[in-house]
Amino acid sequence: MNSEILVQIHPDEAIELLLAQDIDYEMETISLDDALGRVAAENIYSKVNVPPFDRSPYDGYAFRGEDTIGASKDKWVELEVIEEIPAGTWPKYEISSGTAAKILTGGPVPEGANVCIKYEETELIDNRIKIFREIQPNTDIVYMGEDRKKDEVIIEKGDVLNTGEIGELASQGISKVVVYRKPVVGIFNMGSELTPPEERLKKGKIYNSNYNALRAFLENIGMEVIDFGIIKDDEELVEQKTIESLSLVDILITTGGASVGDYEYALSSIKNIGAKVLFWKTAMKPGGSIVVSNIEDKIVFGLSGNPAAALLSLYRVGLPFLYKACGRRELKPETVNVFLKEDLDKNSPAVRLLRGKLEIDNGKVYFAENKEQGNGVVSSFVKCDAFAEIPMGSKAVSAGTLVKAYRVGSLFGSVGE
Amino acid sequence: MNSEILVQIHPDEAIELLLAQDIDYEMETISLDDALGRVAAENIYSKVNVPPFDRSPYDGYAFRGEDTIGASKDKWVELEVIEEIPAGTWPKYEISSGTAAKILTGGPVPEGANVCIKYEETELIDNRIKIFREIQPNTDIVYMGEDRKKDEVIIEKGDVLNTGEIGELASQGISKVVVYRKPVVGIFNMGSELTPPEERLKKGKIYNSNYNALRAFLENIGMEVIDFGIIKDDEELVEQKTIESLSLVDILITTGGASVGDYEYALSSIKNIGAKVLFWKTAMKPGGSIVVSNIEDKIVFGLSGNPAAALLSLYRVGLPFLYKACGRRELKPETVNVFLKEDLDKNSPAVRLLRGKLEIDNGKVYFAENKEQGNGVVSSFVKCDAFAEIPMGSKAVSAGTLVKAYRVGSLFGSVGE
Repeated sequence: MNSEILVQIHPDEAIELLLAQDIDYEMETISLDDALGRVAAENIYSKVNVPPFDRSPYDGYAFRGEDTIGASKDKWVELEVIEEIPAGTWPKYEISSGTAAKILTGGPVPEGANVCIKYEETELIDNRIKIFREIQPNTDIVYMGEDRKKDEVIIEKGDVLNTGEIGELASQGISKVVVYRKPVVGIFNMGSELTPPEERLKKGKIYNSNYNALRAFLENIGMEVIDFGIIKDDEELVEQKTIESLSLVDILITTGGASVGDYEYALSSIKNIGAKVLFWKTAMKPGGSIVVSNIEDKIVFGLSGNPAAALLSLYRVGLPFLYKACGRRELKPETVNVFLKEDLDKNSPAVRLLRGKLEIDNGKVYFAENKEQGNGVVSSFVKCDAFAEIPMGSKAVSAGTLVKAYRVGSLFGSVGE
Repeated sequence: MNSEILVQIHPDEAIELLLAQDIDYEMETISLDDALGRVAAENIYSKVNVPPFDRSPYDGYAFRGEDTIGASKDKWVELEVIEEIPAGTWPKYEISSGTAAKILTGGPVPEGANVCIKYEETELIDNRIKIFREIQPNTDIVYMGEDRKKDEVIIEKGDVLNTGEIGELASQGISKVVVYRKPVVGIFNMGSELTPPEERLKKGKIYNSNYNALRAFLENIGMEVIDFGIIKDDEELVEQKTIESLSLVDILITTGGASVGDYEYALSSIKNIGAKVLFWKTAMKPGGSIVVSNIEDKIVFGLSGNPAAALLSLYRVGLPFLYKACGRRELKPETVNVFLKEDLDKNSPAVRLLRGKLEIDNGKVYFAENKEQGNGVVSSFVKCDAFAEIPMGSKAVSAGTLVKAYRVGSLFGSVGE
């Protein structure tokens, strides 16, 4: 083992080492129908004004506001209706003084007209309407470009496309978008004791939950996942599997190590195949056991065999890099300052991540820790929408203290909030 | 028009009318690999204890704590190592007084042994170890069932499966799950002025953004969407399309109405084909224009042609029913009480929904309204993670007032938070 890489680095330092890695991006053009959750690979500009012409906000009449000067209940103005303009049509005539067009909601306001009025405010006799009040010119029209002007940036390169973005693109007549190809992540899980969920459990074995939990997490981020199965504790097998897998993926994730300490095995095998180790262990708990290396310009994450530790370290240390690999613009998850709900009795010689829930009560936000925080316990991620972070070197923290928290609901505990 | 259904009902009342509708559920069995975001259709029980046997938390030795009574730095105890137990194997021998087994992390603790100790705390000479301190019996073991006991409910019928739930199922050796079939929602958009995004915009027309925005919203909830296209303002066409579409879907959504007032057209056509109208208009803004009816035990939502109004009413009035159709257990979205960040000058004769963002600052949560709140503006849903609700009958609301808010980030503005 190499002493220089044995130092436990701070998770923030680990993030920077990972973000310094270059990514080979590939793009693809997809239909807007398939765009939900994808990441825009270029700036997208508005192509049309929305609305593309002055529209009527009502079912009513369009005319010149000037014609109503002096109009009142008793002294109405009469205008001749010269045409009808349903939505989706185009006016034939220009409106001059003394004339009006019947217009339907969304219909284009004809040349010459500068106001609209609702049916209900008028009286129609034959083809003439009576108007009983003054209307200021240039009012009660939805103007061209009022909602969106042409040639503005509407989506930035690296934006994730969700409901609002997709609606905006459709309103611009953009039916195809250039997005980043989804990164492909391979996973294999090391450990002679591991049994895949579909098999019967034999004596001394446990079920492998690392694969499915990591897969769900990565799919939530917008990645594709390949399962390379369970590998026995055999250095040669691990080396062979690593080389094979790397040729098929953008990123490789392994869990577990070997029988002699969690990571030494994972470490030796990747060193044997010529990987450059970026860091080995970070000063965080749980999840400090992580080895990250670079081989053939691809990143290999070696995570703990404990499912909770594996997820926490991949979230805290790996997420910004995973976001970068997806092409996202915003790489670091937003953190918020919230009140710790209950005392934390433990000291934190390393950065400590707690799983829990944000509770909002009359405008104040509290972080409530989930009861079970064991490293092996995946159930602690159920109904978990936040991780609180206690800084390295902290003593016990009392209830009511402001702590940093990450909002993780959509990645872990609650789909759809 | 029928006067009894012309009354604008409160959105909460509309929700109850919708929730009273029965749903014909169908189930399917799927692989755990495909389970992300799906809804469990039955209670799921734990099948095994986790861990399934007493395990060692360390690489070290297992023996009887009683053997160490009186041990100290100067007066060590010596034990004979009689076997080695890697993870994934099963012990051959029972431990009796004076003996120990070498054991690796995750290895099963042998019969007779009741403590484990790390390598580093011992000294090995030939096949004997020295122990330099007393160790209480029944400590330093990960006990069978410590993380999860057998035969407990781990997933309730109606739970959404996310990372934590999926990891938990895998840890139980559950590789297939019974889930509700995804409801199929059909959408058609009415309006002679509408052009699909993939076509060229002609004079007097606008692009149809309603379809894609609604599709994204429904997909986020976990529904499948069928596009029935754009229908011209022609009552007969609309009736025909409604009947055709209903035979292919569980729920039908239409937007827009006709040239004479937003909903009267949508209303007359569904009445003509024999639908029972549940309600027509709700007392909310935007999005009050909504007609909901029931035909052949299927629900038809007639939404506004304004994209923002359509999304807001479907969220506020339709979401609990849509969740119910998905089989979810929790139907009503969680609301929180937060501080309004800026004055709201308007009166609210109807329930008012504001689009915006929750800002958390030193433990306090503020709702910051998005600038543009127009009915036609989908861009106001970009970076929108909350809707604030101003009660019906409110006057202007000043900054700092506590208001109710819905958290909507995962459905609208921000994937992955």
